[in-house]
Amino acid sequence: MRKRLFLLQLLLTAVTFSFAQNSYELYPSNWWVGMKYNKIQLMIRGNDVGKHSDFSIRYPGVTLTKVNRFSNRNYVILDITIAPVAKPGTIGIRSKNAAGKQSNFEFDLVPRRKGNGTAYANGATSSDLMYLIMPDRFSNGDPSNDRVPGMLDQTLRRDTVFNRHGGDLKGIQNHLDYFTDLGVTALWLNPIIENDMPERTEHGYAFTNHYKVDRRLGGNEAYRNLINAAHAKGIKIIQDAVYNHVGIEHILFKDQPDSTWFHRWPKFTQTNYKDQALFDPYAAAIDKKIMSDGWFVPSMPDWDQSNPFVQNFLIQHAIWTVEQFGIDGWRIDTYAYNDLVFMNKCNKALYDEYPRISIFGETWVHGVPNQSFFCENKYNIPYKSNLQATTDFQLLFYGIQPACNDKFGWTDGVNKLYTTAAQDYVYKDPMRQVIFLDNHDLPRFYSVVGEDTSKYKMAFAWMLTFRGIPQMYYGNEILMTGFTSPNDGYVRQDFPGGWEGDKDNKFTAAGRTEKENKIFNYIKRLANFRKTSSAIKTGKLMQFLPADGVYVYFRYDAKQTVMCVMNTNAEPKTIDLTRFTERIKGFSSAVDVAAGVEFKLEKELQLMPVSNLVLELK
Amino acid sequence: MRKRLFLLQLLLTAVTFSFAQNSYELYPSNWWVGMKYNKIQLMIRGNDVGKHSDFSIRYPGVTLTKVNRFSNRNYVILDITIAPVAKPGTIGIRSKNAAGKQSNFEFDLVPRRKGNGTAYANGATSSDLMYLIMPDRFSNGDPSNDRVPGMLDQTLRRDTVFNRHGGDLKGIQNHLDYFTDLGVTALWLNPIIENDMPERTEHGYAFTNHYKVDRRLGGNEAYRNLINAAHAKGIKIIQDAVYNHVGIEHILFKDQPDSTWFHRWPKFTQTNYKDQALFDPYAAAIDKKIMSDGWFVPSMPDWDQSNPFVQNFLIQHAIWTVEQFGIDGWRIDTYAYNDLVFMNKCNKALYDEYPRISIFGETWVHGVPNQSFFCENKYNIPYKSNLQATTDFQLLFYGIQPACNDKFGWTDGVNKLYTTAAQDYVYKDPMRQVIFLDNHDLPRFYSVVGEDTSKYKMAFAWMLTFRGIPQMYYGNEILMTGFTSPNDGYVRQDFPGGWEGDKDNKFTAAGRTEKENKIFNYIKRLANFRKTSSAIKTGKLMQFLPADGVYVYFRYDAKQTVMCVMNTNAEPKTIDLTRFTERIKGFSSAVDVAAGVEFKLEKELQLMPVSNLVLELK
Repeated sequence: MRKRLFLLQLLLTAVTFSFAQNSYELYPSNWWVGMKYNKIQLMIRGNDVGKHSDFSIRYPGVTLTKVNRFSNRNYVILDITIAPVAKPGTIGIRSKNAAGKQSNFEFDLVPRRKGNGTAYANGATSSDLMYLIMPDRFSNGDPSNDRVPGMLDQTLRRDTVFNRHGGDLKGIQNHLDYFTDLGVTALWLNPIIENDMPERTEHGYAFTNHYKVDRRLGGNEAYRNLINAAHAKGIKIIQDAVYNHVGIEHILFKDQPDSTWFHRWPKFTQTNYKDQALFDPYAAAIDKKIMSDGWFVPSMPDWDQSNPFVQNFLIQHAIWTVEQFGIDGWRIDTYAYNDLVFMNKCNKALYDEYPRISIFGETWVHGVPNQSFFCENKYNIPYKSNLQATTDFQLLFYGIQPACNDKFGWTDGVNKLYTTAAQDYVYKDPMRQVIFLDNHDLPRFYSVVGEDTSKYKMAFAWMLTFRGIPQMYYGNEILMTGFTSPNDGYVRQDFPGGWEGDKDNKFTAAGRTEKENKIFNYIKRLANFRKTSSAIKTGKLMQFLPADGVYVYFRYDAKQTVMCVMNTNAEPKTIDLTRFTERIKGFSSAVDVAAGVEFKLEKELQLMPVSNLVLELK
Repeated sequence: MRKRLFLLQLLLTAVTFSFAQNSYELYPSNWWVGMKYNKIQLMIRGNDVGKHSDFSIRYPGVTLTKVNRFSNRNYVILDITIAPVAKPGTIGIRSKNAAGKQSNFEFDLVPRRKGNGTAYANGATSSDLMYLIMPDRFSNGDPSNDRVPGMLDQTLRRDTVFNRHGGDLKGIQNHLDYFTDLGVTALWLNPIIENDMPERTEHGYAFTNHYKVDRRLGGNEAYRNLINAAHAKGIKIIQDAVYNHVGIEHILFKDQPDSTWFHRWPKFTQTNYKDQALFDPYAAAIDKKIMSDGWFVPSMPDWDQSNPFVQNFLIQHAIWTVEQFGIDGWRIDTYAYNDLVFMNKCNKALYDEYPRISIFGETWVHGVPNQSFFCENKYNIPYKSNLQATTDFQLLFYGIQPACNDKFGWTDGVNKLYTTAAQDYVYKDPMRQVIFLDNHDLPRFYSVVGEDTSKYKMAFAWMLTFRGIPQMYYGNEILMTGFTSPNDGYVRQDFPGGWEGDKDNKFTAAGRTEKENKIFNYIKRLANFRKTSSAIKTGKLMQFLPADGVYVYFRYDAKQTVMCVMNTNAEPKTIDLTRFTERIKGFSSAVDVAAGVEFKLEKELQLMPVSNLVLELK
């Protein structure tokens, strides 16, 4: 309640902001020569800069085309064109302040990364295995940055899930070999951008300054170091982007250029969280407006993305980030809550600059028609999304979860997994969808299956062999548990061994229990097989109707055939292989990938209870 | 088991068939002058007719273009073109039999119905209320046809649901005023074509001779009489078409022209009933084949619809039926089990001949992506169905059923109804979908809701005001009950009063209990309001997010606004109307259509528990 009052105050009262004399901020903090995106809007923020006159730039190839002013005189935005002939250097920008005195601003034009947008931004594909990390909770590589003086959240208590724990980017960098060993090829980090908020800052979804990596994670330099080191080991980095909202402590919210940058409501209005309002042919306008323009939570102001200045600010930041750090792919938070027309524009800007980049959006919705609306699909409808893919909540909620936990029936159990996959015909490219068992917002899958390691292995074997880009969550490999109730903090516990002095170090086999090592090695074996398997990485999928609780699917290409047999029953089963003739014809033996054992293919195959046999046919 | 042996015998042994000397059957039994469909294949069936030579036709405008012969010499099929200049009359067809003796066959060319395909075949639309009748179980108008000598099923026992009861077309015709009074504008009859099968002949889905209306229902003449009488009262007739299979006693199965007319399997193979195999991008060929070519049940042989002779036989019969009887619309049984390419061809032939005809298909599937694949949709996919609409099982199973029976939740209760409707964006024209609470294959809805009249009324109010074509099932209006388990016969009980001497006559108010009259009058009032309501018949739909178990939707056009407020809670609720401003602005009062009471619109509206208020705004 206090939070809401605070918010209303911010919205309804005039905000005054004071700066140190002659202290200015420039966003973006720099740009590059030779970018396709070469018309930028440079925001200058500082005391009364909006009252300056006579802005000018003298730099070969760089033109100031327009000066944009706002009711808040702490801002000007300069429209600047950077011609292909422009060379790297420092652009001098001159103006006169209200007193007629000359001011100088400096803005760097730098050379692009090697490859000019093609040698990096490689995109995560179905050939990757993605590993999601919450940086505050994985490993503390630099204890000196655990608390940063002046930042609002000064907590540092590892005995509660609600406070900061001190994990950072260096801690992640320290474990690159661990990832490679496990079979991971891409890291998706929960947002690493500054979240200078008073509480619950572990998740990172409340940006307060787009151009700063959170200093508690190590700042911009640590991020660059991590990415360079990861790339050197062939590991890609997926950045978590949040376009929909900011933290209420964001500079641009606390000191707004004018009243059109954020959605304002007569009284606090939260989104209704109903994606349906966006595609429902019968939707009420008010429901649609509340869905898109309502705030996600009281502490996260909702950008007005119809404002062209907001659009440019967000697009420039996206491009700046990829170019600055060499990001490979983009995960977009709360995708459905954004202005979807703007999202297309924003995605296109990235595709244009980085043809191989991958972008997927979070779509926590229910139903394939719901989910597919938000990405590239086969619908002839007025709004056509250009988002490559989504986080495939359908194959989780209406797929692998019921396959593991529910009794087999005409529409139940593993039949749900089968039928949800069959609905893939509505996607343009289902192979780009991101499949997962859990993430930072969901109960940990090991808990979901009642800590049943057979079910857990069955699900993992599925995730590592099915269509799409598999995404695991840190600690999956060591059976971390937790439910989101009573609080999602409980699925964001520390990785044991990530902090010096931790009782156990589960990054090492010696630190893991026998049970944990069994799971670790199971995942490692399948993930590393996956790395070498063309059939799984880029091959086709064929699925057969589940029968009697047994689901059989194949991944195959001209070079390789992998047969996966999922027995969801608590009893062993024997299946007749003749039904699968169209895929197994010509093969005489099979290698059980997890067990490393080859056997002769007979007419029948014996299945263990609750298992997913991964067989490479020979 | 005996049935299967019998079947195998039929498939594997040569069939010999004997005819009376000089007895021939011609299919179609006649054709018309001036049809767009003017190239017909005339099947002549008779002893050794396939051995005849020198077939010839001399008739102005009529040309014999080809004689098709088969391994079974009991058949020839003549390709005949009927030019626009041809006049009505009897075509003489000559041939020479094996002994060189001349044979004559006569085939009538008759004038078309008045209107040449436009004054009839009017189609059922969202302006209609459709009433489904199982003819054997509705009313016995002609006891003389209850048993027909020579037919295989000689049962006549009303004390079991498994035998024939004697209902017929005359019985339906006798109640046309009853339908009109109730507000019904279209009748869909379960199939009326001959089912000369040994048992369970009440449902009619096992045709044995396409060109005969079942004599126990009154034969071709009774059908013509019923339709003429119905049309005279403004009631449309929807015919139930079965293209997928026939009864095992069908002449063309018992005496097959050759081995290519029906799907043959090494051993009896039933369809897998899995629609997914048809659109799943990952489907196995064998699953697809079994889905389409497997038999529906052992007593129903599955046409091979890739055979052009089969295609022509079925298309001609469809057109013949519409023209012969003046059918308004077409309901296609087991739609997904047909050859879908052929279905498009078949539908197109009807659309070409009858531009206003309506066609909907039965799609008993689970999921909007599943259902929408089979009708006109918004998908850019290789197979594009031209079927106008389907029986909307989704709005039943994932709509009104959970709305009535399940607790309200984020994805549950009436939220399912809302979200399923929101997925309508995938259909080309959702207003053509047929919505219903039950039918001859489903538990009766009054039983589904635990005989709770409040829920029942709520559901009926929904069905009569929502988008699409509402379809009720005979006896809905008098609270008939029944579950499909242990046998679907129990949802096909007789309409009390349909037989002379019935204890009660529920066709009259005096014969109904007070409770039944309340429901009857509720449905009647809403159905008759519907008849006059442009907003409901052809207007738009707007739905608001359900909140707290209350779901509000509007039907509206330039002339009228109808607000429907469904309170699915067991408690009364009060709702704030300001949320609906975009639809209620400008209106000051509302007529409660069911109660016939007008009241002033205030800021709030009180709702009774479990109710659907239908309000015409003024």
